[in-house]
Amino acid sequence: MVDIPTDAQTNRQVVRKRAEAKTIEPDSAITLVTVSIDEPDMETPRGDIDRLREALAKEAGIETLATDPVLLPRVQTILRKGHWTVTAAIHTDISSVPIMVALWPGEKQAVYGLAVDIGSTTIAAHLCNLQNGRTVSSAGTSNPQIRFGEDLMSRVSYVQMNPAKLPNLVKAVREAINALVGKLVGDVGAERADVLDATFVGNPVMHHLFLGIDPVELGGAPFALAASDAMILTARDLDLDLNPGARVYMLPCIAGHVGADAAAATLSESPYSLDETTLLVDVGTNAEIVLGNKNRLLAASSPTGPAFEGAEISSGQRAAPGAIERIRIDKDTLEPRFKVIGVDEWSDEEGFSEKIDSVGVTGICGSGIIEAVAEMYLAGLITEDGVIDGSMAAKTHRVRSEGRTFSYVIAEDGIEISILQTDIRAIQLAKGALYAGIKLLQDKLGTDHIDRIRFAGAFGSYIEPKYAMILGLIPDCALDGVSGVGNAAGTGARMALLNRGYRREIEETVHKIEKIETALEPKFQEHFVNAMALPNKVDPFINLRAAVELPEPKTPVEAEGTGDGRRRRRRRG
Amino acid sequence: MVDIPTDAQTNRQVVRKRAEAKTIEPDSAITLVTVSIDEPDMETPRGDIDRLREALAKEAGIETLATDPVLLPRVQTILRKGHWTVTAAIHTDISSVPIMVALWPGEKQAVYGLAVDIGSTTIAAHLCNLQNGRTVSSAGTSNPQIRFGEDLMSRVSYVQMNPAKLPNLVKAVREAINALVGKLVGDVGAERADVLDATFVGNPVMHHLFLGIDPVELGGAPFALAASDAMILTARDLDLDLNPGARVYMLPCIAGHVGADAAAATLSESPYSLDETTLLVDVGTNAEIVLGNKNRLLAASSPTGPAFEGAEISSGQRAAPGAIERIRIDKDTLEPRFKVIGVDEWSDEEGFSEKIDSVGVTGICGSGIIEAVAEMYLAGLITEDGVIDGSMAAKTHRVRSEGRTFSYVIAEDGIEISILQTDIRAIQLAKGALYAGIKLLQDKLGTDHIDRIRFAGAFGSYIEPKYAMILGLIPDCALDGVSGVGNAAGTGARMALLNRGYRREIEETVHKIEKIETALEPKFQEHFVNAMALPNKVDPFINLRAAVELPEPKTPVEAEGTGDGRRRRRRRG
Repeated sequence: MVDIPTDAQTNRQVVRKRAEAKTIEPDSAITLVTVSIDEPDMETPRGDIDRLREALAKEAGIETLATDPVLLPRVQTILRKGHWTVTAAIHTDISSVPIMVALWPGEKQAVYGLAVDIGSTTIAAHLCNLQNGRTVSSAGTSNPQIRFGEDLMSRVSYVQMNPAKLPNLVKAVREAINALVGKLVGDVGAERADVLDATFVGNPVMHHLFLGIDPVELGGAPFALAASDAMILTARDLDLDLNPGARVYMLPCIAGHVGADAAAATLSESPYSLDETTLLVDVGTNAEIVLGNKNRLLAASSPTGPAFEGAEISSGQRAAPGAIERIRIDKDTLEPRFKVIGVDEWSDEEGFSEKIDSVGVTGICGSGIIEAVAEMYLAGLITEDGVIDGSMAAKTHRVRSEGRTFSYVIAEDGIEISILQTDIRAIQLAKGALYAGIKLLQDKLGTDHIDRIRFAGAFGSYIEPKYAMILGLIPDCALDGVSGVGNAAGTGARMALLNRGYRREIEETVHKIEKIETALEPKFQEHFVNAMALPNKVDPFINLRAAVELPEPKTPVEAEGTGDGRRRRRRRG
Repeated sequence: MVDIPTDAQTNRQVVRKRAEAKTIEPDSAITLVTVSIDEPDMETPRGDIDRLREALAKEAGIETLATDPVLLPRVQTILRKGHWTVTAAIHTDISSVPIMVALWPGEKQAVYGLAVDIGSTTIAAHLCNLQNGRTVSSAGTSNPQIRFGEDLMSRVSYVQMNPAKLPNLVKAVREAINALVGKLVGDVGAERADVLDATFVGNPVMHHLFLGIDPVELGGAPFALAASDAMILTARDLDLDLNPGARVYMLPCIAGHVGADAAAATLSESPYSLDETTLLVDVGTNAEIVLGNKNRLLAASSPTGPAFEGAEISSGQRAAPGAIERIRIDKDTLEPRFKVIGVDEWSDEEGFSEKIDSVGVTGICGSGIIEAVAEMYLAGLITEDGVIDGSMAAKTHRVRSEGRTFSYVIAEDGIEISILQTDIRAIQLAKGALYAGIKLLQDKLGTDHIDRIRFAGAFGSYIEPKYAMILGLIPDCALDGVSGVGNAAGTGARMALLNRGYRREIEETVHKIEKIETALEPKFQEHFVNAMALPNKVDPFINLRAAVELPEPKTPVEAEGTGDGRRRRRRRG
């Protein structure tokens, strides 16, 4: 099911991308300096801006100060308006001497920065006060590039087929950001001209498209990034409608499939500063995986496909009102109960049936799928190989024959919502790919032991660790060591916005991080095949088994077919 | 007479602004570096441009290399087109770390730079090969801002009256430069994208208008410059149609009336490196004056008005075909002979009368006026106070009564060309202002002795030192120490373009130079009054008198009036 989110759906989703409450010590690239200078006189005929530059440099304790050319036409008016007292915004970071980028008459109290996470589906932006580091407003919008392709690869294909349309994709994302900025500054009664700095993160394709770079090289091996290092640009280089002198810091990309969003999430969780071994996973169409500790850090991506986001699932949909997001199956009755986004009550609770009328049950989202498959496994409805056990049809009308395979019906008032064998296969493929990628990094790191597992991203915030582990989506770990960390990429973007130390930190980390290309690893296939089983064909999952009683391995009754080509038989009759 | 030059006139004028033959050791801000890099592979997933940057930095022996954002969308295509061998243009100068500004597949042989002198009347541009330092093409065009005002102050007034029209003046000059560039690169079969660097000089108003700065502050005391220091911008900051990554170096302005053109002329003549004392004069509507030696250097401007350019003179015109540019008056017969621009023969030579028919005698240009007044003085036609001696009407029909004053007729076939008393007054006011300014600098320097006098600018190239000195336009000096240096501002612009050492040299010089504001000096008026006389009321002009026999002081026969209000009488009869 491919669904283009409406604004309402998107906004609902976006609520999940709220800025986390992390405290960031401010040390931004923008310094405000107020100075008073002498009026010009004929004895010292030096340019107003040059006298100002010198006074600012002295006041700020810096040697050389450059001037953004955008100030040239405006400096004399501003100086006179402020009666020779003005406040300058000075940008100080790599790639340049300190530079005066904005100027106001008199004193200026607050200037803002923008931290943006450009997701392929959703763009989330935070407006932060650069002086005190507070996030003053957050907002999100759907990525309008969706009209050129639902997922990353379809957008890359679109550009490949229509190279002349590249500017349209670039313009679409920049305009969406400009609109977001309007909303953010409006929320706090500020102006666009008050926004002096911005940081951007995104996966490599989003990163490139935002920069105006053709992403076609990212569409095939060797997945060559045009640019990966951190860089500083001006807002006007990117047609961003901020202060004309505003600067932009692009966080570095890690590899062709491990973007600046993964770098930002890594910055947010800083596994490189811990003794414990952390696994950081951002689940999307490509799962981005970072594993390690202060001694060593590795990164990879794994092509999970969009199943975890509800795509390629027969009743799948994005996380939006009407989507089943939680599900429990009674082991005795095999009856399901579930929770729908937009309704607080579970389906078997009082009040549900009244409230559901206004929302409807429209599908099942990523976290719902995961719980459904895990619960079906726990209830004995599917085997450890992921086959829906047709013999269970004798015990419940919810297991139904679908020709050569079986399905399990969750809801059938209104739209029928079922888990089909193909849905389970899609989830198995996705989680198998993810697990195999993680496993490769574990091999490289030389340990199976993981202390902490952190799920980044909206999806990660809503899946319950237990179910992810039962499914074998993540490796075994003490359950209390697993948690969602929300929009860690957005948090990392805010950190890099508010404190330059974090910029250097992530630049160094990205240089040092060991990049593993899963496609080049001979053991990937073996890990992948083992990881198709629930939770895994070979790995013991000791922590999990101590917490949850997993069913005994069972041999399925063979139905008309199992969906597995090798075992497929001719249909009789 | 105010005349707007036609293109033909302008082009004729511009021939005078040819690049001088000075040899400049090349050390430009642009370095071409050719490197080959490995193809991208999945094991080292670093961005193509980042791997390229590192290879270039290593090859060029620099530590950090930034990237101009304009390259981002193009780097992958160029690398692949060059089969991983490319040539980069690296810009290295103040205000920034070295930065990659352009990239070509394979090897690139020649890149060019542009040196432009933006005059209020004429824009002259030179295209130079940045590798070998040669000037490969030169061209000029009229400054289209003339349609907003003939001279500087009328353009400043125009902007003051019509602030919304400022962008039109800015656009006009930039478009004219872009058109010039098209011609220059066309001349040598190059492309706009081959132009990587540019330097610009101009008086403060031209400098500001080119940068998009409102020049209104320059129109009145304290004549505050918005920006005076040297600066580096990008060509796209200024809407220049060069390589998108091209850089621009603006030479510094010295003071509110002593612009980057004077700085460039100073660079060209480098008086600051000589033991001898040099006087450098650029005559225009404002004369720019630089005086000194390696111990001390002073600068000032003096408001000469446009008389030296043929404006405010009854028969005056710009230096263009048809203008009288040379004149001699026989001391006995008081008959003139003259030379006209566009005809090789003097007016009394064989062939003149045939050739003059196609050109015509249309007026008298600046150098012609100066020679005319000086020759009239030498011939006893005017007194040392500049009064046309009416008694000479008895000796020649060419001295005629014009009511209260007299005139001298130079030509009367076709258009009558005469020198009126008001013309002589205009020249006296202009030369008096110039001389008073020079004198003030001499006072400050504490010496009357000058070893070298250099006339910069088109006008300066065509006036004969002897006549300038007879007129008392310049102070006394050995005549062989006086020469025109052509477009010294353009030469300075080329020097700063081709060798960064000259940039530092002029930056330091402009910082050290003592700026004298003539309007603030109490002695200016006294010097000015003395300098109204020919050659001067008080200064002895020893060198001049040794070379030229000056007439004895004479008392004029009083005519109906002398043009001098104090002596004016009522007309009789």
